[in-house]
Amino acid sequence: MNTQDALPPDDVVLARAYLAAVAEPPAPSLTTFVARHGPVETAERVRAGEVPAEVADEVEARRGHVDGRRVLDSATESGVRIVCPEHPEWPHERFSCFAEATEMGVPAVAEPIALWCRGSASAARLLDRSVAIVGARAASAYGESVAAELAHGTASTGCTVVSGAAYGIDGAAHRGALAAGGPTVAFLACGADFDYPAGHSRLLRSISDSGLVISEYVPGTRPRKHRFLVRNRLIAASGRGTVVVEAGARSGASNTAATADALGRSVMAVPGPVTSVSSVGCHTMIRSGNAVLVTNADEVAEVINPMGMAPPVDTPVPERRTDGLDQCARRLHDVLGTSDGHSAEQLARDTGLPLRKVRAVLPALEMAGLVELREQGWARCRS
Amino acid sequence: MNTQDALPPDDVVLARAYLAAVAEPPAPSLTTFVARHGPVETAERVRAGEVPAEVADEVEARRGHVDGRRVLDSATESGVRIVCPEHPEWPHERFSCFAEATEMGVPAVAEPIALWCRGSASAARLLDRSVAIVGARAASAYGESVAAELAHGTASTGCTVVSGAAYGIDGAAHRGALAAGGPTVAFLACGADFDYPAGHSRLLRSISDSGLVISEYVPGTRPRKHRFLVRNRLIAASGRGTVVVEAGARSGASNTAATADALGRSVMAVPGPVTSVSSVGCHTMIRSGNAVLVTNADEVAEVINPMGMAPPVDTPVPERRTDGLDQCARRLHDVLGTSDGHSAEQLARDTGLPLRKVRAVLPALEMAGLVELREQGWARCRS
Repeated sequence: MNTQDALPPDDVVLARAYLAAVAEPPAPSLTTFVARHGPVETAERVRAGEVPAEVADEVEARRGHVDGRRVLDSATESGVRIVCPEHPEWPHERFSCFAEATEMGVPAVAEPIALWCRGSASAARLLDRSVAIVGARAASAYGESVAAELAHGTASTGCTVVSGAAYGIDGAAHRGALAAGGPTVAFLACGADFDYPAGHSRLLRSISDSGLVISEYVPGTRPRKHRFLVRNRLIAASGRGTVVVEAGARSGASNTAATADALGRSVMAVPGPVTSVSSVGCHTMIRSGNAVLVTNADEVAEVINPMGMAPPVDTPVPERRTDGLDQCARRLHDVLGTSDGHSAEQLARDTGLPLRKVRAVLPALEMAGLVELREQGWARCRS
Repeated sequence: MNTQDALPPDDVVLARAYLAAVAEPPAPSLTTFVARHGPVETAERVRAGEVPAEVADEVEARRGHVDGRRVLDSATESGVRIVCPEHPEWPHERFSCFAEATEMGVPAVAEPIALWCRGSASAARLLDRSVAIVGARAASAYGESVAAELAHGTASTGCTVVSGAAYGIDGAAHRGALAAGGPTVAFLACGADFDYPAGHSRLLRSISDSGLVISEYVPGTRPRKHRFLVRNRLIAASGRGTVVVEAGARSGASNTAATADALGRSVMAVPGPVTSVSSVGCHTMIRSGNAVLVTNADEVAEVINPMGMAPPVDTPVPERRTDGLDQCARRLHDVLGTSDGHSAEQLARDTGLPLRKVRAVLPALEMAGLVELREQGWARCRS
């Protein structure tokens, strides 16, 4: 994917590997410091203990226990490669929202120090047009089927489906994308070398074959509860919009949705039966105006595409032969049966329309093939 | 209900009965003319053919064929009584929206000339606090059960449920209200003397026992397609808000919702499975911002009650013991297992937190009963 000459120098990569392993994400002070001093100088100063207090807080615990070279080697051994902001495949466009949100005072949305990727595809290319589809682990059969359907439709238009590889909605979303032959990206809350959850090891292999399994945690990092919330900001940032398919009253998916909103991304939610606890979170988001209701991939495309790039979705409305009629003509047509005939006078009384109006409209209805004059009077055409 | 001395004079009632029978509703020109000249003078001038052209158009066909006295007598015979704007039980407050909307240019929303009621309850009292619950005839089992549940909950708070007595959602709404012991009002698109639909004759009797079966069509008027649309404005006006439970892409319920909106009433819609054609109309309304998503009677009450009269509905969120913890404390708690012990130094490296922070937070977690210091080190409390 990357041309050889565009790759960053070894010392930059080594410094990033060291810094990524030293600080527990998100590390806003370290990220800001790296942006100012570059990764190589930052790594030297961290190692030497010559950083401001707020950066020291983020690196103190591990700075003497990490060897960047060893982190890189063990990553390579486990089939994971590092991607740095200095690499051409860094998703700058997707991740620029982190700096913007941080400036606006959104907490804990620092850009990652580095990404660790399983798979050979380019992160920037995959994430250029992408939608996050997330939801509860404890999903219903309805939710999983809708997630797979949405992901299939989204992937069919060449859009990458991003999710978190969890059981339930996440897994269904990845599978739906793969079934459409589209690439999909999974962000993990542990090292990208782990098959987590274990039951998704085959799924994760399929994902990395055509897409990417990505983590900001260095290989070997175990999943922890708080890491899922931290990881969610990468999913939220990576999608042009986030679709929540099912979410309980309290859920990680709602957290991803709130983060997506804070990062300026569109938030969508899929409704479900009001009797289902799995849809409570989605309904709350829609009701409060925090999410747009979507029911299919076309509606998702309409939300995420800049104005004018996708045609607005109009639910097709069935047409009827009487659609073009004005109110008077429709009233007359309503009153006429197919069997018995009526005189114009009878019709006027029955509809309350003036007789001259009835006499004017009947021939027009006849021309349209809707009524006919029989021996016993006017009647509706049989058809 | 009415005190004898508050009743309108006989000639007023007779004139209204005549005018109601003469004009096919809605009759905006006639309604305006009556408002200016009163019903008695209007009836005389209509009979004599001395009305402006636009009024003549609305009355010409039947003005010579109707006898007000006969209309009143046959209504009484079929157990239907007339209610006029001059009666104390006329729902002035509910119907004032018609004049306002007409002034603003909304077409075909004239106030009825009179109402024909089956049942002895006061229309004004029943409609003072009311919610319209409507939806498709071809409803799903899900839709009918949600409609009944919503109506039950709404009626339980002393709110009258208004609907159209049709099969499907309408019928379920009336039944849910009756099951809660609450009154309910059905507006028919034919004379109030008809049991329409025929399969709802027992339901209509139950409705009129405690509530009202109402129509603006004089007794004996047959149901016609266009009359359902005309009737819908009375349902829309009568509810403080209209809830659509299920509606296809093209439905009478969507028409009632649009009319409610035009009349300045709140419009709500219940979501359902995105795989159900019966919910397409509801989802379209919510998605386009034309309806607020509601999932239960509490949420309906929140929408229809003026600010401050009902507490806002917060979906209850399950609480956890770790809810009060700050981010550092939660990180520490995450990392600790219940079996093996950790030293503070190990915990600092594992969480990436500064050692002094770890040493400060652990005793606080211990005080909260969340962690304990064992021989092998710190561990999470078993519970």
